[in-house]
Order: sequence, then structure tokens, then C-alpha cells
Amino acid sequence: MTARSFHPPVRTLMGPGPSDVNPRILEAMSRPTIGHLDPQFVAMMDEMKDLLRYAFQTDYELAMPVSAPGSAGMETCFVNLVEAGDKVVVCQNGVFGGRMKENVERCGATPVMVEDEWGKAVDLDKVNDTLKAHPDAKVLAFVHAETSTGAISDARSLARLAREHGCLSIADTVTSLGGSPLKVSEWGLDAVYSGTQKCLSCTPGLSPVTFSERAIATVKNRSSKVQSWFMDLNLVLGYWGSGAKRAYHHTAPVNALYGLHEALVILQEEGIENAWRRHQRNHQALRAGIEAMGLEFVVDEAQRLPQLNSVSIPEGVDDAAVRGRLLQEYGLEIGAGLGPMAGSIWRIGLMGYASNQKNVLLCLGALDAVLSDMKAPVESGVAVEAAMRLYAQLQ
Amino acid sequence: MTARSFHPPVRTLMGPGPSDVNPRILEAMSRPTIGHLDPQFVAMMDEMKDLLRYAFQTDYELAMPVSAPGSAGMETCFVNLVEAGDKVVVCQNGVFGGRMKENVERCGATPVMVEDEWGKAVDLDKVNDTLKAHPDAKVLAFVHAETSTGAISDARSLARLAREHGCLSIADTVTSLGGSPLKVSEWGLDAVYSGTQKCLSCTPGLSPVTFSERAIATVKNRSSKVQSWFMDLNLVLGYWGSGAKRAYHHTAPVNALYGLHEALVILQEEGIENAWRRHQRNHQALRAGIEAMGLEFVVDEAQRLPQLNSVSIPEGVDDAAVRGRLLQEYGLEIGAGLGPMAGSIWRIGLMGYASNQKNVLLCLGALDAVLSDMKAPVESGVAVEAAMRLYAQLQ
Repeated sequence: MTARSFHPPVRTLMGPGPSDVNPRILEAMSRPTIGHLDPQFVAMMDEMKDLLRYAFQTDYELAMPVSAPGSAGMETCFVNLVEAGDKVVVCQNGVFGGRMKENVERCGATPVMVEDEWGKAVDLDKVNDTLKAHPDAKVLAFVHAETSTGAISDARSLARLAREHGCLSIADTVTSLGGSPLKVSEWGLDAVYSGTQKCLSCTPGLSPVTFSERAIATVKNRSSKVQSWFMDLNLVLGYWGSGAKRAYHHTAPVNALYGLHEALVILQEEGIENAWRRHQRNHQALRAGIEAMGLEFVVDEAQRLPQLNSVSIPEGVDDAAVRGRLLQEYGLEIGAGLGPMAGSIWRIGLMGYASNQKNVLLCLGALDAVLSDMKAPVESGVAVEAAMRLYAQLQ
Repeated sequence: MTARSFHPPVRTLMGPGPSDVNPRILEAMSRPTIGHLDPQFVAMMDEMKDLLRYAFQTDYELAMPVSAPGSAGMETCFVNLVEAGDKVVVCQNGVFGGRMKENVERCGATPVMVEDEWGKAVDLDKVNDTLKAHPDAKVLAFVHAETSTGAISDARSLARLAREHGCLSIADTVTSLGGSPLKVSEWGLDAVYSGTQKCLSCTPGLSPVTFSERAIATVKNRSSKVQSWFMDLNLVLGYWGSGAKRAYHHTAPVNALYGLHEALVILQEEGIENAWRRHQRNHQALRAGIEAMGLEFVVDEAQRLPQLNSVSIPEGVDDAAVRGRLLQEYGLEIGAGLGPMAGSIWRIGLMGYASNQKNVLLCLGALDAVLSDMKAPVESGVAVEAAMRLYAQLQ
């Protein structure tokens, strides 16, 4: 075998992530590698912590990226805060609540599940009842923005419920960070993890996290060692913490961190409230087009994420064939359904840099053309115009 | 705070890693991001597995990069192969053997330590005696190339001892892969992990691993779940395995993988035996210069790694001051000692792309100038010439 350099095609990424990466970020990642203990690198790390605090809207001391994808950020939260024998209330309304349950079990702890229908927000009353019934629960864990369904839950109220019942809260904000209002300190969330490849428009591979002081205290006062050496915050903070001297723990992914730094600079330049508004505006335009075609959203309007649009696949339409044609003929990637929703929904991402008018119009135009050509039961030739009218209204 | 784009200085990286990154790899990382389930990405993954097999000199089916740095590669080996109650013989002759011990303990297993002096190879007789004394040991774990000291151990004989005593072997090849002869299949190693930022000249952040069939069988026949969800190979192989359909596990670090692919293409172009020879040649030249100055190597010649040169700091010389001046005045990074060797040794890396004549001459010239200026007890003005003479001899 003789392999050659890999030159990827240029795609438009409108799935559940990775989303289109801002070219500034790609360029930043290609800057010269320097040492992970270089004084200039350490200064960049300090600046990145400030930028992450802005993105998370937090004043917590601990704000840093885990050197691995979002699922390692999730695991970092669980393995540090949960010990064998603990009880954790886990809200599940999609794929990622189920992954949280797996994490709890693998810590030797007991998950108490609060199940909600996929596509619905977490039900606050059920959570309240469960916390009342389990006064010994240590942690309440939930997903702010369910990437598998496109539903947002009320993270502010869930954090309040956790505090009222003496629990720490763990929140998955992988898809919400940078796309939907998230105010970590004001809401009093305790351990929050996210990803870089969604509304931060960065490449995948890192997981920003932030921990409250009481979460840190819990990590420091554990009765057992954290089961993961790589994710043990007691060790990681020797490198990412506030101490003057940075101790080697693992070698930081230097160039990926250049990329995340650039993504956070871009977010700061736009202003986070502006980013939230932009995600709403492009969602409204996409929605106008989708509804004009006669397609239906999976999630009720009040619980709908602007950055992840789950749309029901019309009866008789071949999911894979449509996605295949969008990719082949238009270079456009949209997402398939996950788990029980596979084959019945599409997930259309409008995340970060990808949340723009050009993408909305491409997606509607391509979907319209492919579905019409396949004789799907949709209204043809109206979607793009409906979106344009909406943009004009929002001017 | 208003942060701006981070523009790193251009350094020459001659520490223990990250080492100088080939510009082709930096450029590859800046190519457009595509989806982690895109057919073209999946084809690239398949090619990468072949390229990793070449780098590891293995025909094992499982050869893939863990989506996190080398320490996560180490942890992937331990959490998958070791269960609570198991006994693991761990060879320690530097920092990384100690990290292996931590991993064993955090799996709830019992480490049996074989200790050797730092800077020496692992003693085969001691390992044999220990395996005899512990017939119930399940795994023998050792470091092929100790990055903390610069000593290489006899991985072939250690793998043989493991098999003779019915153990699986886990080998750390973070610093050896691509720099020193490593023949995974021929030697019969079972679980091998490495890093990208050493002799592969890639950016840090990924950890290539390869597992033998019997190691895979052990993972598949565990009596308990792997304690890490993120690192559980039973799940990861749904994405990286040989099945026709790739199941989503976590979002792969797409652009970092472009970089690793390019690094492996470059290795294939050079030819791995040529890469090994190049590391030897530049080491010999550096050695000629170092010895001409009157400096001494920490490791005996027969056990010395060509890619990581540990040099004793002459008495009375201020370690941090020398490294600071090299960085400030020459843009040159060399490594400090780790753990008990901090302050008494320098670690000079000649890894991958950084293993070249220009770097050898810069390092010797800069070290000569700084040490002479600081009135250190070294022979001045002879190092560069000694290296040049050696290169001429090797023509």
C-alpha cells in the first residue's frame, strides 16, 4: 500500500456537529507548535481561561478545556464528583442522558432515572418528586440541549432544584454553549461540560469544562482516588490551575488549543448575546422554509433549540437516499436520527459559523430539489422564498 | 478583557516532546473539516489503520489512534485489560512506570513492582524472577523508551518473558515509535500505545494503539464493564473497528486525524528503517559535540535512546538559567529533568522532523555559547566542529 496525502472535499456541515469551522480557526491551528510549558503558551492558557469564563458566563476559577472530546468532558465531571456507593439522579430525554447513566454505573454509583419522552424537555415536577424521594442523592445530572432530539431543558430551574435538595448539578452543554443562553454562575450550575465542534465552530477534540467552588471542594475531599488518572482534576489542575508553576501532567494538545483560543476570540468579538440572537434569526428563517414545504418539527416550539432542528421525515421517504444525494450533489451534510429516532428524523444543525443565511438557503434549496425529485409529499419551490421573506421581516 | 489572536513564536523544539512539527502536517490540519461519518473520512480512517500497522510493524487488526494524548492511550490499555483483583507486574525505571502503577491501582488491581535505577534499562532477570514468584500475574507492563531518562529496554525479550509466563504485555512506546526499532507482531507485544508528538513529528493530542488478538479477546471476555466509557474498546471499536457500518461513539478529532494521517504518509515515504537510521546518525553527531564539550550522558551507551539524549548538568551550572537563555536568545527549547532528576539533567530531543543536522548544530552552538558565557566548566568552541567531523565520517 502506498498512501498519499488526504485532501478532504469541501462540505457544508449542517448536521449535529462537527459544524462548519471558521477558516480563521483552521489557520490558527496551523501555526507553529511550541512547548506545552513555554512561557508564551502558559500566558495563552491563562487568557483562554478568561475567554472560557466569558463563553460559560461564569466567574468560577476553574474553566479549562479537557484534552479530549465532549464525552471525555462528561466523564471528567462524573469520575471526579461521583464515588462508588453514591446516588445520582439522571434525567434522560435522549441519547446523552443514557450516556450519563452509563457513566454513573461505571463509577460504581447508583443512577436514579427521571425519564421523559424523547423530544420533550426534562419535566421539572418529576425531578422535584424524585429528589424528594431520594434525599440521599448527591448529584443531579441533566442535558441542557439534547443533541439527539433538539430539545432544550430549563437548566436554571434544574440547577435551583439541585441546590434546594442539597445536590450538586452536572450539566451537558455540548450543543448549547455559544448558541443558546447559558449563565453558569447566575444559575448556580456546579459542573458543566461542553464541546468545541458545535456552536463554537471549532474542530472537534476538546471539551471545555467549568466547576463551581463547591464542586472543586467535593473533588478535593473525596474518600477514594478518582478512577481515571488522565481525568483526575486533582492532577490536571497542577497544569491548568492558578498556580504560578505549571506541573507536567499530560502533554497538552497545543495546536488544537490554538484553534479553541481563536474560536473564543471570535465569540468575544461578536458578543455572546449577538451570537445567541444570530442563532435564533437563522433558525426562524430555516423554520419558515421547512414549514412552507409542509415538513414538521419534532420538538414543540417552546422547547426547540435554534441550533439543532429536528424534522420528521415524511412517510415513504428514504432517509439514507436523501442524505446521500444531499452529500453527493450539494456537498451538504445533515444529520440522521440517533437510537430510536434513526430513520424517522433529520437533524439540521445551524451551529456557530454554520448559522448563516447562505447555509439556510442552500439547505432549503437542496432539500426542496431532492425531495421534489423523489416525489416526496412536500410543497415544491416555496421553501427558499419563505426563508427570504422571513429574513426581510427580521431586517 | 479583550483578547486577540494568539501568534506563537517560532521555536526549535528539542525537548522531550512536542518536537518540531513537519510543516506538511500543520498544513494538513488546516484542511476543511468534514463529518466524522462522511464516507471519505471513513475511507481515510481505513487507510490510517494500514499506515499505523506499518509504523508499529504489526499485522494486528486493531491499530487506531485514541482521541486523546498518550496518557489516555496508556489508560486505554490498562482499563481495558485489567480488572479489579488482577495482579500486574509493572517495571519502573523512570516516571512512566510510576504512572503505570497509578493506573493499575485505579483499576482496583494489585501492582507488583520491578524497580530499576533511573537511567538504566529494565533488568530481565529481575522480571523473570518476579514473574516466577507471581504465577497469577495477568499482565507485564513496561516502558520501551523511558522519556524521563532516555533509556531503552529490551521490549522483544520482555514480550517473550510475558508469553512464557502466560501474561499479556503492555508496552509504552510513546518515544520509540518511529525513532527506534519496534516490531510489534514479530516480538509478540499485546497492547502497545504511543504518542504523536515525538518521533512522528505530529502535534500532540492523539495516542496510536495496537492490540493483539489475544488482548482483544481479553477485552471482549471481561467479567466487568470497562470503568471508562470513553476508553471502552468494546464501544470504540464500533467506530474504529472493521465493520462496514461505523457507529457513533464519540466525535472523532477530525483535523487532528488529518495531521496524523499526513505524519504517517511522511513516515512511509521515508521508510521506517531509514527513519531509524536517521535518528541514529543525528544522535551520533550530537554525541560527538556533547562529549567534545566534556559533558556526560546519563545513560550507558548500549541503552541510550538516539531520540532522547539525557545529559548531566555540570556542577554549579544553573539549570533554569541555561534553558531560559536558550529559549530567549536562540528560540531553542530543551527539556528539564523530571522527578528526582529535575535540576541535574537536560533532556535533548532529536525526534522525528527535529532529528536533523540543522538542529544538532544549533543546539551545540547555542549550548556552547551560553555555557561558555556563564563560565561553566566545559570545553569551549569545539562542539560544532566535532559534530561536523562526525557527519563527514558518516557520509
